[in-house]
Amino acid sequence: PLIAILAGDGIGPEVTAEARRVLDTLGLDLGYEEGLVGGAAYKAVGHPLPPETLDLARRADAVLFGAVGDPDCDALERQFRPEQAILGLRKELGLFANLRPAKLFAGLEDASALRPEIAREIDMVIIRELTGDVYFGAKGFRTTADGLREGHDEMRYDEREIARIARVGFETARTRKGKLLSVDKANVLETSQLWRDVVIEVSADYPDVALSHMYVDNAAMQMVRNPGQFDVIVTGNLFGDILSDEASMCAGSIGMLPSAALDGTGRGMYEPIHGSAPDIAGQGKANPCAAILSAAMMLRHSLDLPDAADRIEAAVAEAILGGARTPDLGGTLSTRAMGDAVLAHLG
Amino acid sequence: PLIAILAGDGIGPEVTAEARRVLDTLGLDLGYEEGLVGGAAYKAVGHPLPPETLDLARRADAVLFGAVGDPDCDALERQFRPEQAILGLRKELGLFANLRPAKLFAGLEDASALRPEIAREIDMVIIRELTGDVYFGAKGFRTTADGLREGHDEMRYDEREIARIARVGFETARTRKGKLLSVDKANVLETSQLWRDVVIEVSADYPDVALSHMYVDNAAMQMVRNPGQFDVIVTGNLFGDILSDEASMCAGSIGMLPSAALDGTGRGMYEPIHGSAPDIAGQGKANPCAAILSAAMMLRHSLDLPDAADRIEAAVAEAILGGARTPDLGGTLSTRAMGDAVLAHLG
Ligand SMILES: CC(C)[C@H](C(=O)O)[C@@H](O)C(=O)O
Ligand SMILES: CC(C)[C@H](C(=O)O)[C@@H](O)C(=O)O
Repeated sequence: PLIAILAGDGIGPEVTAEARRVLDTLGLDLGYEEGLVGGAAYKAVGHPLPPETLDLARRADAVLFGAVGDPDCDALERQFRPEQAILGLRKELGLFANLRPAKLFAGLEDASALRPEIAREIDMVIIRELTGDVYFGAKGFRTTADGLREGHDEMRYDEREIARIARVGFETARTRKGKLLSVDKANVLETSQLWRDVVIEVSADYPDVALSHMYVDNAAMQMVRNPGQFDVIVTGNLFGDILSDEASMCAGSIGMLPSAALDGTGRGMYEPIHGSAPDIAGQGKANPCAAILSAAMMLRHSLDLPDAADRIEAAVAEAILGGARTPDLGGTLSTRAMGDAVLAHLG
Repeated sequence: PLIAILAGDGIGPEVTAEARRVLDTLGLDLGYEEGLVGGAAYKAVGHPLPPETLDLARRADAVLFGAVGDPDCDALERQFRPEQAILGLRKELGLFANLRPAKLFAGLEDASALRPEIAREIDMVIIRELTGDVYFGAKGFRTTADGLREGHDEMRYDEREIARIARVGFETARTRKGKLLSVDKANVLETSQLWRDVVIEVSADYPDVALSHMYVDNAAMQMVRNPGQFDVIVTGNLFGDILSDEASMCAGSIGMLPSAALDGTGRGMYEPIHGSAPDIAGQGKANPCAAILSAAMMLRHSLDLPDAADRIEAAVAEAILGGARTPDLGGTLSTRAMGDAVLAHLG
């Protein structure tokens, strides 16, 4: 299998290098090809998502993504900014299903702003729709009848888009506790009303899964009050963006959390949820665990190597339990040394 | 001055009665008129916001609102559901500026899911735009070219709507720490891009206020990680809905937090941020503090009686510090007894 390595900006290259070291150790038959993305690509060839990179991502069986974001690019027009590379890859590759696990790793109870007894219970997966919603609806500027500038973005979902992400939710619920929570704002939004209707329709195919619903404002509250109540959550692109970041922070260490963006046929893009952290880039201070765990998700979801994925995940958990800590976790290990600690537990 | 009392459903009447008792004690020259709203209005006259109620709200100098929401109405068509009364009042009265203070009351450090040392620092005001955004844009269902059902809701803001809420933000910042944070999603949404542009334009009139910007997903994280960093936040209707509920929960006891919805000329609607809590309705278990503090906001913002407002707020703070606790705060006081405790500190 061919893995596209898009390491990107800031700490992206450092953490991706550790993920690759871990993969190499497993003796799998993987080929790698590197591509430019984000601010690094803009600086090299004038675009955050060059055609060669998109082509590589299409050819590859999976994309291992680092991070994008570069303060040098902040003043650029939107289309040239690093984040556009992420949005472009999602859309062009049809990566509609974003899996964002949030859990507290044993040993990191003190890393969360939540009380330890509350934080300890966090173990959920947020399934966020990734190629629709107000992100990709008709948008722009126009002038009102009164001659005023107006900005507009259309939120929209059709029943097919909702049904396919709902199915990912129900399937995921089956592999966990058999509970699915759908989050919407159906008391205000028609898009949410259709969302809720279709999720309920799809639930007929999953009689073994208990479906419930919650408004997004209440979900944002409950995520703080009692995040342990959540197991599998399915929601739209915008609400998923907000709630999954909130959930990650409740779990304490965003340096530990991976994500997957899947197209429904097994192809996917895997990326740590943390950003490019330009302030610590190139200093060997970044925590590579999120990137390493992203590689594990890749093995599970795109390469059908669940045992290898399990091994990596266990090694990370053991390294943490054994006290390995990068600075974000209050320790002093370098990026490389944390990679070593994980490798040591891979046996 | 005429106060419209819209007590509504569930615990609304109980907590509003205590707020009124507190107001009565102050010997102010207030007249009251009661109106039906929410599920109670639907059951009595077939509509959650009857014309007489809307008329009363228009005639009044301020509206003291309890809560709406009734499980009996869950299956009704959207237009008849209790929440529509709130949306209708906001829109019809032009209540575009929602002020939602979130702070931790001294003595309630243990009520938050956040660590006490983090929760203790919470003292912010979220200013949420309340009559625009995806709440009130064109919305509905349609059929796609492929014959699929599609739901759509347009997010939109024009420069006038943005500028007037931005001014409320800057003015509020002047009364506090001289810092204003605007929250948007300008990396994805054109509405947010215009929002950011206009907020920056308006900032020219407030050189004494330090303006900054944050994306909503990051704000949802920071609200958990370090809520003490926030002072005055201005944001749109949807992001404000989510973030203000999250902030309230970080502060611990949603039974303590009031809100105001203002029209820019001094008229306003004042309501506790908690809902109708049908499970405990009529049992004298509800915490009346949020309703009492909403009445204080009314005195300050609609009736130009800041000293009376200060007195009420001080009395609530002292009652809490003195150990008065309803069941939501881990105590045993009834709604009425909590009202008494506040009255006792009014002197
Ligand atoms: C960078 C940005 C466009 C992106 C998003 O909003 O989807 C990011 O926040 C994420 O969650 O991956
Ligand atoms: C009831 C609902 C329509 C309302 C809103 O979303 O505005 C509520 O959540 C609020 O925040 O007042």
